Amino acid sequence: MGEEIRYKQVIFSNYVKTSVKESDLSLRTSKIQLKIPCGCDGVVLVKNLYLSIDPFILALMKNQELDLPSFTLDSKLCMPGMTAYVGFFKFCSPKKGETVYVSAASGAVGQLVGQFAKIAGCYVVGSAGNKEKSAFALMKVDLLKNKFRFDEAFNYKEEQDYNAALKRYFPDGIDIYFDNVGGKMLEAVLNSMRLNGRVALCGMISQYNSLEQPEGVHNLINALVKRVRMEGFFTSDHYHLYPKFLEMVVPLIKEEKITYVEDIAEGIESAPGALFGLYSGRNVGKLLVVVARE
Amino acid sequence: MGEEIRYKQVIFSNYVKTSVKESDLSLRTSKIQLKIPCGCDGVVLVKNLYLSIDPFILALMKNQELDLPSFTLDSKLCMPGMTAYVGFFKFCSPKKGETVYVSAASGAVGQLVGQFAKIAGCYVVGSAGNKEKSAFALMKVDLLKNKFRFDEAFNYKEEQDYNAALKRYFPDGIDIYFDNVGGKMLEAVLNSMRLNGRVALCGMISQYNSLEQPEGVHNLINALVKRVRMEGFFTSDHYHLYPKFLEMVVPLIKEEKITYVEDIAEGIESAPGALFGLYSGRNVGKLLVVVARE
Repeated sequence: MGEEIRYKQVIFSNYVKTSVKESDLSLRTSKIQLKIPCGCDGVVLVKNLYLSIDPFILALMKNQELDLPSFTLDSKLCMPGMTAYVGFFKFCSPKKGETVYVSAASGAVGQLVGQFAKIAGCYVVGSAGNKEKSAFALMKVDLLKNKFRFDEAFNYKEEQDYNAALKRYFPDGIDIYFDNVGGKMLEAVLNSMRLNGRVALCGMISQYNSLEQPEGVHNLINALVKRVRMEGFFTSDHYHLYPKFLEMVVPLIKEEKITYVEDIAEGIESAPGALFGLYSGRNVGKLLVVVARE
Repeated sequence: MGEEIRYKQVIFSNYVKTSVKESDLSLRTSKIQLKIPCGCDGVVLVKNLYLSIDPFILALMKNQELDLPSFTLDSKLCMPGMTAYVGFFKFCSPKKGETVYVSAASGAVGQLVGQFAKIAGCYVVGSAGNKEKSAFALMKVDLLKNKFRFDEAFNYKEEQDYNAALKRYFPDGIDIYFDNVGGKMLEAVLNSMRLNGRVALCGMISQYNSLEQPEGVHNLINALVKRVRMEGFFTSDHYHLYPKFLEMVVPLIKEEKITYVEDIAEGIESAPGALFGLYSGRNVGKLLVVVARE
């Protein structure tokens, strides 16, 4: 007979319609016996120490007809790093001297894409921000330039006109756009793309939350006229590249040529708040919840 | 001293705002001396026998900031055939057994894409139509099925709901979309795309005319979730493939394995009308104007 323990759960109570609300998630305390059922040889009990909080979770919480895969075990293993690696090197086909724009650049994936772009010899600009103009947004922009060594960075919330902002940072246009946000920013980028540009569709965080109807992109004719390749990808389709990823990244980490910022919330009770914060840009870097320290 | 002749010109009088209007073009009769200027050895006088009327002309008639190339001499040499070849084989990467949808399928490019798709062992459905439900639209649909051997064809003007129409013809989804129209049809197709689908952005005829503001595509998240590759292309970038194109197409024409329909208007006076007709779907196949018979 195993030990009976009390534990806390975050319950997914309602399908999300537009924005995730507190009432869509609830906290519950339950009891469980830490016992492996009889006849289950070779089975182990697993204790989760961390939860990964990712923008994509909201898409899974909506009752909509999208062919979304379930989470797999793999998607807790270095996902942001592999996403940055696969998305940038496989889907953006970077060449030395090209211009790269990364949105949501202070996030888990974006911060690495920018560093990979610098290693590939590109000029890279990142945007970040949060719902309010704040010292916090300033800190994110500062982090992009001074910690992650982006060539330029800006707070997109301070820009009235995305087209003008992009013209300022990319007077000769953008070769590569690593898109983490979709919507109006994607539309503006298409106006600034250069001939034979590439857009990796990695995330559309601006479209997951807050909108009854997703924003329309009205200028896809630019993709035609400028011969732009736009491609969506899921990291889980490319795990055969994992050894190559490690081969590249491990020495770079050891030599401190790439760096990383994590944003850690304490206790499973903080998971709903961490998720709400993610959609209003309150995190910096990879967002985690510590469930237990050991 | 060369012979002085009277000749007719179609003059491009005004930049087009939304739809092309009769007042945007005018007919003029002028005089010219058929004489090569002195000192110009090796120069020849050229007499045009045919004009090519293409959907893309309207984009060149609008005073908008798009990086559009000027027409080149090459773009009167087999352009629709090369466009179908390059767009389908290079940008759609077809595999035997895949499902292919072609919009504006009775046009100069579409009719060939459908036939190439059948040769590649694909299931192919085309849509055509014109502004009014008419016997003419019926004739186009009939042509697609019975002359060009598409598996299915439909008049998009008779469909209230493009999503429902595509579900009917592609119950298991679309692998390849050869897009000649853009706008709302592209949006509907994205809902029906299969995993790892490909969209060749060849034309956006629905967006060139009649619209103050281009239609928005609101569901690009499908391109992300379904890992779809969307890519714009210009045939003129791929003329190095011309020998390969001929190698494939010439035997197919000789063996009557591919066929072709042209829509020929008589006399340069008919050029403006032919252009107006193109945007209301009044042509079938490659639209030409005969300027002179010899």
